[in-house]
Amino acid sequence: MIDLKKVIAEYSPDTAEIESVRKLSDDLIIKISDYCRINNINADPLLVGSSSRGTSLRGADVDIFIRFKRGYGIREMEKLGLEIGHSILKKGVEKYAEHPYVSSNEFGRKVDVVPCFMIDNANERLTAVDRTPLHSEYLKTHLTVQQRDEVKLLKLFMRKQGIYGSELKTNGFSGYVTELLIVNYGSFLSAITHFSTLKGKLIVGDYEATKKFTSPVIIIDPTDPQRNAGAAVSLTALSILKLCGKIFLREPSESYFGMEPDKKPSPNVDRGTVFYIIRIRRPEIVDDIIFPQVQKMISAIVRASKEYGFNIISSEYSVEDEIEVLLELETDILPSVKLHSGPPVESDNIIPFLEKHNGKDVLRGPYVMDGRIYVELKNSMNVYDDALHKILENADLGKHINNMKEEFKIQRYEGKLPDLKVSTNFLSKRNPN
Amino acid sequence: MIDLKKVIAEYSPDTAEIESVRKLSDDLIIKISDYCRINNINADPLLVGSSSRGTSLRGADVDIFIRFKRGYGIREMEKLGLEIGHSILKKGVEKYAEHPYVSSNEFGRKVDVVPCFMIDNANERLTAVDRTPLHSEYLKTHLTVQQRDEVKLLKLFMRKQGIYGSELKTNGFSGYVTELLIVNYGSFLSAITHFSTLKGKLIVGDYEATKKFTSPVIIIDPTDPQRNAGAAVSLTALSILKLCGKIFLREPSESYFGMEPDKKPSPNVDRGTVFYIIRIRRPEIVDDIIFPQVQKMISAIVRASKEYGFNIISSEYSVEDEIEVLLELETDILPSVKLHSGPPVESDNIIPFLEKHNGKDVLRGPYVMDGRIYVELKNSMNVYDDALHKILENADLGKHINNMKEEFKIQRYEGKLPDLKVSTNFLSKRNPN
Repeated sequence: MIDLKKVIAEYSPDTAEIESVRKLSDDLIIKISDYCRINNINADPLLVGSSSRGTSLRGADVDIFIRFKRGYGIREMEKLGLEIGHSILKKGVEKYAEHPYVSSNEFGRKVDVVPCFMIDNANERLTAVDRTPLHSEYLKTHLTVQQRDEVKLLKLFMRKQGIYGSELKTNGFSGYVTELLIVNYGSFLSAITHFSTLKGKLIVGDYEATKKFTSPVIIIDPTDPQRNAGAAVSLTALSILKLCGKIFLREPSESYFGMEPDKKPSPNVDRGTVFYIIRIRRPEIVDDIIFPQVQKMISAIVRASKEYGFNIISSEYSVEDEIEVLLELETDILPSVKLHSGPPVESDNIIPFLEKHNGKDVLRGPYVMDGRIYVELKNSMNVYDDALHKILENADLGKHINNMKEEFKIQRYEGKLPDLKVSTNFLSKRNPN
Repeated sequence: MIDLKKVIAEYSPDTAEIESVRKLSDDLIIKISDYCRINNINADPLLVGSSSRGTSLRGADVDIFIRFKRGYGIREMEKLGLEIGHSILKKGVEKYAEHPYVSSNEFGRKVDVVPCFMIDNANERLTAVDRTPLHSEYLKTHLTVQQRDEVKLLKLFMRKQGIYGSELKTNGFSGYVTELLIVNYGSFLSAITHFSTLKGKLIVGDYEATKKFTSPVIIIDPTDPQRNAGAAVSLTALSILKLCGKIFLREPSESYFGMEPDKKPSPNVDRGTVFYIIRIRRPEIVDDIIFPQVQKMISAIVRASKEYGFNIISSEYSVEDEIEVLLELETDILPSVKLHSGPPVESDNIIPFLEKHNGKDVLRGPYVMDGRIYVELKNSMNVYDDALHKILENADLGKHINNMKEEFKIQRYEGKLPDLKVSTNFLSKRNPN
């Protein structure tokens, strides 16, 4: 029998950690209050996030929001917010979400100090983060003490499967969504039971509120019925949840829980394919900007490669100290002939087409098949190394990466993969984890 | 300026040939009449086909039909038809269309003696060929003397483009269809003008009669409104006619006319591809059976190759003394890994799938993408030579070719093509010819 209590105990903060987090947050809140009073700033600090409601796991962040009274301009609120943040976080660095905030690791865990506007109702909000204190308030009154542990179990289950986190790196379930799911289904096991038999979308909320959304996961934010709190969850993340729910229930085991997926790479054997790995120095930008940019870059490369006739059969990436992009191809040398499709025979463009294609570059044809004319031309871009360089040269890879094109390192591998982080990611792809 | 009269003169039978064909056909008709009278057979011979109505080109066949009075059984008619055929064609051989007939080359041109039933109206017909004498009758009264030459021009234009002949080898325009087109459009030039601007299907006939047909060419048989005389014409043949019409009219030239397409092969250069050529002894069967069988064989190979992951980028064949089938591939070695698509994650089959794929043949995965699970397996059939042998072993290639599988000669070529008829066909593919 699986011992879920043991799982909870293993990953929950112990009494000492709880006490230390409380002391830290109380201390920061007092300092912020003092700063505001002394400097005549009309704002209140508030502990939000999982630490504020007992749903956090070991080592969790501390999120403190400074709620400004309405009347401040957004720029002014931002400026004062940073000022306060730096005054209490001596080693704080500025980060950017919708607006800037100060973040620090100086207390042995991540502490974020985020300014926002104080609102009573979501439709009064001026910035996206204004809603966060409302979330805290809602959950404090809707989650029972027992359900806080159920939230932790669901988080640990999702974390182990790599689908926890709404950031663009993961496209998974946010902490808030996890908590709303427990509010809705009551417990970890009843939630998992629901997922394991669910067909189609995951929908929580009134029909009237949910019907206007189209994403795979639709969870109406109880503090703002106009918002889908599950908008960030990808179809793949939902599918992994369904699959792992089903498998877990057949044979429940502690191995489905953890802080993050294990890397269990498949053996690094010769797959009879060709790999191209692009390595790029990581620019100084936050995950939520760099990850979508790398994903966009890969889509652009895959699309452009297809236009040259090269089929990327799989791709992978790693963004840590450097950006590593892996492309796997069946073959990186194409025939030196390519079929070029001309206009329909009925088209007036057929004459210019025939006049254009009567030279030395024609290897065969032109000829008619069904309703269209074709010609076989010499393919001068039939080596992938050439095509990839041309693709990277011309592609829009997002403004940060565009500036670094000259530094790209491109390497071709046949047979086994090199010892790189992206290789480990590639070989570790496995669900359930 | 193009001299169409010169074209007509070049390919029409001269006076001596016309005289000799008349003598030959008169002689055969008298012999058949005599035979029938002496043997109490109630049947009449009749010259049909292009020779009977002055639309034939040099060296054309002579077609004589023996019209049996109704009352004979089909088997009896067939038996007597062969008896008569052999009695007048000393070196005649039996051939099979819908029923058997006797054919001979003993008079310096092909002579066919075909039995049929005498009918006044197409809906009385008992066999497909019973209509043929009605066609002759119709055309004799509907084609003017001048139009007979127009028919010849249209035939010569189609012959040069390889789209003349309704047999399954060509899927083109029959002699009868060509004549009906001239009846309808009046002349070669007005017919070509129509084709050159035609969009979509070629339709000749009343809307009510044509609407039930769906093929690219719909030409209602005036002797049988239930029949589409153009049913055999492929979309490719119609498209070639439209294209060549358009190009011919821009710059008319004698080079668009001839008895058959010129072979103007493209240079035999290295295309960076791989060829497999299958050579088979030609079994003793008529074109109308062997051609569709070879075409069917190629479709079956292309389809099965795709299932193994091999992409046949082009194919060609030649059926003369031997059958030669050419297959061109981008590559004949695939990766040793293949992506195997499993069931949707919601399916009950997901558990058996995961249980099945947890062994040594799994190179990576299983993993979820969107709504489905995938696994990467070892591909043991990744060399085309192995796959092709397996495909040919298992495929149904039609009863005649199935019996000869052990004799197949399969050869792989890289770079230039070998000196074979199929290579010439492959390299000569070109429209307009």
